[in-house]
Amino acid sequence: MKILFELLNSKGVSGYEWETKQLLLEYIAKRKKSWNVLPEIYSGEEFHDCILLKFGKPRTAVFAHIDTIGFMARYTNELVAVGGPDCDSGTVLAGEDSLGQISCRLIDNDGVLSHDFQRKIDRGTTLSYAQDIRIDEEFIQAAYLDNRLGVYNALELCESIEDGWVVFSTYEEHGGGSMPFLLKFIQETASIKNALISDITWVTEGVEHHKGVTISIRDKFIPRKIFINKIINLAEQSGIPFQLEVEGSGGSDGREIQFSPYAIDWCFIGAPEDNVHSPNEKVSLKDLDSMIRLYQYLLPRI
Amino acid sequence: MKILFELLNSKGVSGYEWETKQLLLEYIAKRKKSWNVLPEIYSGEEFHDCILLKFGKPRTAVFAHIDTIGFMARYTNELVAVGGPDCDSGTVLAGEDSLGQISCRLIDNDGVLSHDFQRKIDRGTTLSYAQDIRIDEEFIQAAYLDNRLGVYNALELCESIEDGWVVFSTYEEHGGGSMPFLLKFIQETASIKNALISDITWVTEGVEHHKGVTISIRDKFIPRKIFINKIINLAEQSGIPFQLEVEGSGGSDGREIQFSPYAIDWCFIGAPEDNVHSPNEKVSLKDLDSMIRLYQYLLPRI
Amino acid sequence: MKILFELLNSKGVSGYEWETKQLLLEYIAKRKKSWNVLPEIYSGEEFHDCILLKFGKPRTAVFAHIDTIGFMARYTNELVAVGGPDCDSGTVLAGEDSLGQISCRLIDNDGVLSHDFQRKIDRGTTLSYAQDIRIDEEFIQAAYLDNRLGVYNALELCESIEDGWVVFSTYEEHGGGSMPFLLKFIQETASIKNALISDITWVTEGVEHHKGVTISIRDKFIPRKIFINKIINLAEQSGIPFQLEVEGSGGSDGREIQFSPYAIDWCFIGAPEDNVHSPNEKVSLKDLDSMIRLYQYLLPRI
Repeated sequence: MKILFELLNSKGVSGYEWETKQLLLEYIAKRKKSWNVLPEIYSGEEFHDCILLKFGKPRTAVFAHIDTIGFMARYTNELVAVGGPDCDSGTVLAGEDSLGQISCRLIDNDGVLSHDFQRKIDRGTTLSYAQDIRIDEEFIQAAYLDNRLGVYNALELCESIEDGWVVFSTYEEHGGGSMPFLLKFIQETASIKNALISDITWVTEGVEHHKGVTISIRDKFIPRKIFINKIINLAEQSGIPFQLEVEGSGGSDGREIQFSPYAIDWCFIGAPEDNVHSPNEKVSLKDLDSMIRLYQYLLPRI
Repeated sequence: MKILFELLNSKGVSGYEWETKQLLLEYIAKRKKSWNVLPEIYSGEEFHDCILLKFGKPRTAVFAHIDTIGFMARYTNELVAVGGPDCDSGTVLAGEDSLGQISCRLIDNDGVLSHDFQRKIDRGTTLSYAQDIRIDEEFIQAAYLDNRLGVYNALELCESIEDGWVVFSTYEEHGGGSMPFLLKFIQETASIKNALISDITWVTEGVEHHKGVTISIRDKFIPRKIFINKIINLAEQSGIPFQLEVEGSGGSDGREIQFSPYAIDWCFIGAPEDNVHSPNEKVSLKDLDSMIRLYQYLLPRI
Repeated sequence: MKILFELLNSKGVSGYEWETKQLLLEYIAKRKKSWNVLPEIYSGEEFHDCILLKFGKPRTAVFAHIDTIGFMARYTNELVAVGGPDCDSGTVLAGEDSLGQISCRLIDNDGVLSHDFQRKIDRGTTLSYAQDIRIDEEFIQAAYLDNRLGVYNALELCESIEDGWVVFSTYEEHGGGSMPFLLKFIQETASIKNALISDITWVTEGVEHHKGVTISIRDKFIPRKIFINKIINLAEQSGIPFQLEVEGSGGSDGREIQFSPYAIDWCFIGAPEDNVHSPNEKVSLKDLDSMIRLYQYLLPRI
């Protein structure tokens, strides 16, 4: 789990994903020789800060977004949210600008966000939650489990996958924007019919810790039921614990697949977390384990 | 009008359109021999639950969405809306899950939707309004006239059309998602410059029953006036009754044409209904007749 | 500045841009012989009301939208907004319908818009703010500086540009819709990696008159910081006055680049205005001058 800790400690607020991209590229370069299948690797300026790995002859792509929510310095001591972060006053934020390291506290005054740093911060500087990783026998708790765990799951899948794309996308937390060009590249390079979204969802009254990975029947958007049924049937066969989610809001990279000019079925599959978009996101280690196992079960079978 | 009754009685909540697709494919297979021109038929998994018919050498496509609004079972006895259904408590809903047929009543408790069925319903099961079709000399009244009448109009057009696409789309009631791949396929197969949206609009203070089919100058989105003017001029020449709509909200498959990567002009043309998105949608038979006649007049002329 | 006055006096409410397009085509036809490089000109029905100019071998495209906000006649004496116009009761509006010229006053009754014209106006007729251009030594003030100044800046750039696209888009004020097909055409004809948005932004607590052209680090959407940093570094080298904007809302043609299926970096660069979307938009002539100079500095260097 060393790479998970490195991911949790790397910064990647939407629009500023290059540090996380660099970390992933180094990990992939070192690790790929031990993978079951050697992938083709696509990255570099023409892919912005995204990475695509093509294994064998893909029918399915797995997408994990590498960006996180956060904050951006505005004028004087104001902040603007990036994505939808939890905004508890007093939360410790960290970043860096032209004058050096920054550590300050978030102030939420009726929705107007500011910081208490003793000097001005360069306009446009991004701040992240200060990281504090806690693990016990049951849970992992940290900032940015959404979506460092989804990225970790995708990397674990790389160990054994024979056929499929594993794709690291950007901007998911702030409306998206990389999926359209990623999908175009995929469909023109080695096209797919199915997509799985490796991301983290919410603990709710119907989705609980320790009950297994969540297969989402819908969030704000509705994937084709015919495909979801296929996934659920396979999950039942697998014997791996899973639970079904039905939400009326929320979104993921699946949204951009739904609205893409390709007829690709998609399904969100991920462990649920508590304390969403806060420094204290909490995921059951059992659910993470069933997430990893379900992806490995599904990929050869769809 | 047998096919209209069959359409009204078939289920097709967004994401679950396969039953309606199957009904249409069977109708088309039986009926096409008597059509003026034999179309090329595109359907199957690579088109998800959509159907495209290509007649002759198209300049124009007619789009009719085959999905409907409805409800989806969440946890315990909760429901989540699909699209924007009218939510009167007491409305009878129908569906089916792994345990059998479902008939229950809708409960709207300050926006929190639930049902009164005597047992749990499988998560993700869709429920539709119980159907009750009423016809007299002036009106047809039923659930899902939007957009079963638009589909019926498109099928009537198939009888005589020489050149054009007739396209049955999905997901329109819930944000869309099939139009992008349909448009890509159309433009790469036999490209078009014009699109007509065969759908049902609203009776308002400016649009009344019995005044003819509605040509929409705008809804939330604004098609190019230069094209709308061409349509209005032809409608005037035709002698068919019509009325002009100017709205600030609402949308249709036209929205996805507007935002597509193709310079295609579009116009929404459809009969107006009262009691929108309820089990009691009501359309004037005169307006339906002028809708059918206007499409048949326009297609050879644009 | 004759062309700027002609632009300010021409009508181009979103969806009705043909008058402005015609004016631009005439200007380009007359003026292009004296430009440094003769561009290829793309316009006509297949581009709707947009115009594309290709100079040399483009790496970058500059986009200026030619539409404006305004109003549309609904039923009786009602109006519906096009885009997000300022709605002060008493504002003078102008237009034309089948019965002749229209001059009337806007009435805003708790968000319900109407006019006081003495007769009905044809449904779908667009009305614009009556134009009143005021210039002194420091400021230009008029309706529709947004985005007539952005168009003017793009035309000034045409004088000297060697390599690049200069593109006049439509519909920007009302959700967009031309950028997707413009981007597709550009990428398939002579592809780009960078885009600059030549448009007008807001005077705020952090962005002031006379402080120079605004480089926007973000509005509602977030361009890649790696590209913004490159622009800022070049602006610093140039010695041209500029200021940095960080906003949480607002959008531009940049939004549609962000969500396009191409990995194109984008940056909004434009003078700030006061009295946004009103008949009294106000821009510093110094800021306009630095806008024009910065574009001319940047184009050869990115």
